[in-house]
Amino acid sequence: MITKETLEKIDGNRHRYVDELLAFLRIPSVSTYTQHASDVRRAAEWVYNHLKRLEFQTKLFETARHPVVFGKNCPYADRPTLLIYGHYDVQPPEPLDEWTNPPFTPTIHDGYVYARGASDDKGQFFTYLKAIEAILAADGKLPINVKILVEGEEEIGSPNLGAFLREHEVELRADAVAISDGSQFSQGMPAITYGLRGLSYLQIDVQGPRIDLHSGSFGGIVANPTQVLADLLAKLKNPDGTIAIPGFYDDVLPLQQWEREEMASLPFDEDRLREYLGVSQLVGEAEYSPLERKTARPTLDLNGIWGGFSGEGAKTVIPARAGAKISMRLVPDQKPRIINQLLKDYLNSIKPAGVKVQISELHGAEPVLVSRHQQSVQAAAKAIEIGFGKAPVFIREGGSIPIVNLFKEVLNLDGILMMGWGCPDDGAHSPNERFSLDDFHRGIRSAAALLYELHR
Amino acid sequence: MITKETLEKIDGNRHRYVDELLAFLRIPSVSTYTQHASDVRRAAEWVYNHLKRLEFQTKLFETARHPVVFGKNCPYADRPTLLIYGHYDVQPPEPLDEWTNPPFTPTIHDGYVYARGASDDKGQFFTYLKAIEAILAADGKLPINVKILVEGEEEIGSPNLGAFLREHEVELRADAVAISDGSQFSQGMPAITYGLRGLSYLQIDVQGPRIDLHSGSFGGIVANPTQVLADLLAKLKNPDGTIAIPGFYDDVLPLQQWEREEMASLPFDEDRLREYLGVSQLVGEAEYSPLERKTARPTLDLNGIWGGFSGEGAKTVIPARAGAKISMRLVPDQKPRIINQLLKDYLNSIKPAGVKVQISELHGAEPVLVSRHQQSVQAAAKAIEIGFGKAPVFIREGGSIPIVNLFKEVLNLDGILMMGWGCPDDGAHSPNERFSLDDFHRGIRSAAALLYELHR
Repeated sequence: MITKETLEKIDGNRHRYVDELLAFLRIPSVSTYTQHASDVRRAAEWVYNHLKRLEFQTKLFETARHPVVFGKNCPYADRPTLLIYGHYDVQPPEPLDEWTNPPFTPTIHDGYVYARGASDDKGQFFTYLKAIEAILAADGKLPINVKILVEGEEEIGSPNLGAFLREHEVELRADAVAISDGSQFSQGMPAITYGLRGLSYLQIDVQGPRIDLHSGSFGGIVANPTQVLADLLAKLKNPDGTIAIPGFYDDVLPLQQWEREEMASLPFDEDRLREYLGVSQLVGEAEYSPLERKTARPTLDLNGIWGGFSGEGAKTVIPARAGAKISMRLVPDQKPRIINQLLKDYLNSIKPAGVKVQISELHGAEPVLVSRHQQSVQAAAKAIEIGFGKAPVFIREGGSIPIVNLFKEVLNLDGILMMGWGCPDDGAHSPNERFSLDDFHRGIRSAAALLYELHR
Repeated sequence: MITKETLEKIDGNRHRYVDELLAFLRIPSVSTYTQHASDVRRAAEWVYNHLKRLEFQTKLFETARHPVVFGKNCPYADRPTLLIYGHYDVQPPEPLDEWTNPPFTPTIHDGYVYARGASDDKGQFFTYLKAIEAILAADGKLPINVKILVEGEEEIGSPNLGAFLREHEVELRADAVAISDGSQFSQGMPAITYGLRGLSYLQIDVQGPRIDLHSGSFGGIVANPTQVLADLLAKLKNPDGTIAIPGFYDDVLPLQQWEREEMASLPFDEDRLREYLGVSQLVGEAEYSPLERKTARPTLDLNGIWGGFSGEGAKTVIPARAGAKISMRLVPDQKPRIINQLLKDYLNSIKPAGVKVQISELHGAEPVLVSRHQQSVQAAAKAIEIGFGKAPVFIREGGSIPIVNLFKEVLNLDGILMMGWGCPDDGAHSPNERFSLDDFHRGIRSAAALLYELHR
């Protein structure tokens, strides 16, 4: 059970914790942009120095791209070990003109901090560092063994983490892993996530003529790559909105009856969601509820499309090339490798003559389901109850955390504790991303409580 | 008949003429970009000063956007008047990284000058100024009355030229108008163009959610504007490549038998064209020849498409919005106004729920057919024979010259002399636009000869 002294430390240092978070958020650690590589490294070093100050044995490991920070404080031979995972990299902030304040100039307003990475994942991950700091200050030692692993490539699909885990498998061994990189079910309704969708992300490039052509001089004889692209993309969906790739649904595990019942019992305000999204109506598979559709059903979305002239006014060209980014959210037991192949086979079977079509795999993640009856999951539920003042609900989430599968497979870990301190409307990946300062505080309390609860 | 002295002047000053053209090409007069407005004005002033030096009565007229330069030298009450039209503005140069040399640093290589505007239309229009200079130097006076009208908005659809023509209708009155803003049929095969396609250019904007959304958190319930856009654009074409807009072909005047026979007699090297375009095959309506398809049949091309993330790597968003530029090349008797309405009605009838679809008209031009039996057209044919050493062929062109209809309608002019000095592979509107220096020289000779031939 968490000590009174620790809780007092957490409550007493609340404002300093926020100041420190702001410093972390000022680092524009956008992992997908090569020109931000030095900023990404700066964020890694910031985390490294922080762990050093907590007197963790700390190391900064180089990878092929962005470094991994690893720290440990494992004084006990006979107590369990918790591995804490986080990522210090962030999504690109674009479109910049939709931010009220610059994305890397964190701003506090109405109890929220606004910045890229505020919720995903700097703000959430940072709660563990402050929880550890408070416990050490209050009790002088941690109740269990703790290892911390912080990577800088989550937003690009963690391409080097698998190799890292395999190489350091012994050093990383743990009884459970804590990941706070998601959200509560809704504000004030904390949750433990037991399911995640997987991901297949691909790019399609269509090459037509070798150069942009005058549409007056050549219109009528040249296959227009922009039109070809639109035709191919339109054929990815059936008229009812379902996915037209042959075999796409073959490996989908049907939702269990108890899951559907539990999901139906969760509050879901469709009007409020529509208003938040700014859409006149929700769309999707009519035989599933919106909550089921966005967390437990597979989807296909175009994430970007480009080709030809998009500037001011009119330019009469037939573009030389066009392209699109396509991602599919997968559910158990779909496999990214198989889904990628199905998409490629389908596009190759329908592509027309007169253009070159190239399909590239960008990244992928397996879908995940965690048994909620494990001891560590029950400890997490208690910790949340202490931190938030109410028991969590158990939910599935629509997003992917690509590394969860690695923890399952490489480290043979079933105790995957996904406890999101954020909220669904934090705007992760969107302009004006934010994080509630109250949730930041509750997250620190929960993180601290978890370490005590895991000490059986 | 052109005088020996004039021809000698033209031949003797060949290199100086090229140097002067290079100075004109260095001005980045991109009319569609507001940030280039001062460069566009600089090009207008360059033309104005040039006309002044030829002792034309010259005026620079302001319009709502870019100025019109007008000059006249009309000493005769009893001789015909030729109006010469040109434009000093150019297309945007993008994509910049496909230019071998910077677009506004003209470079001479293998007998060509490479620069944006080299062929379209600075290099072609400039031949008339040099022809007039040579005649005045050789003979001391022009053989007929000459008026010159040079605008700076051709590449954005001449939005202010109609009002200008209407306002100055009396001052602009002429017996024929000379326009060199197209091309020969092929290198060494000069042509008079008697037909032009018209244009309808529109933009479609699709608005989905109010902000970009995380595709994991919201995929499955939100209509994706990029997908909606692709679906709408795919429905613009039938599976055989014809245009699916209901009523689109209703007003198409069928090609005459004699036109089809003449077109069939023109040399057309499909292999060479395919190689130039860099495509494995030509596409289009099987019942028409490629030449018919690209000059005398209506088309629909996407000129640009955008939405969401197009950067390096992967970003898992559902974009808030997406858009495309759509242009249709029209043939007699299609009307842009009617075609625009048909497109709007069609898109509005097929757009799905859950998104906002907005369609904007960007610009338009009526298709044109000129009778080739007029006296002025016959004079133009003779002038070309003198300048190029061979008689022109009569052709239709696939592009639009939006102002030709204005000359027809406002000035009641049937003598429209479309004599392109350029070549189809000059790359107008493309990277590495060029103009043959030999054709520049032949153009000056032909322009001078035209003034003499029109003196009956």
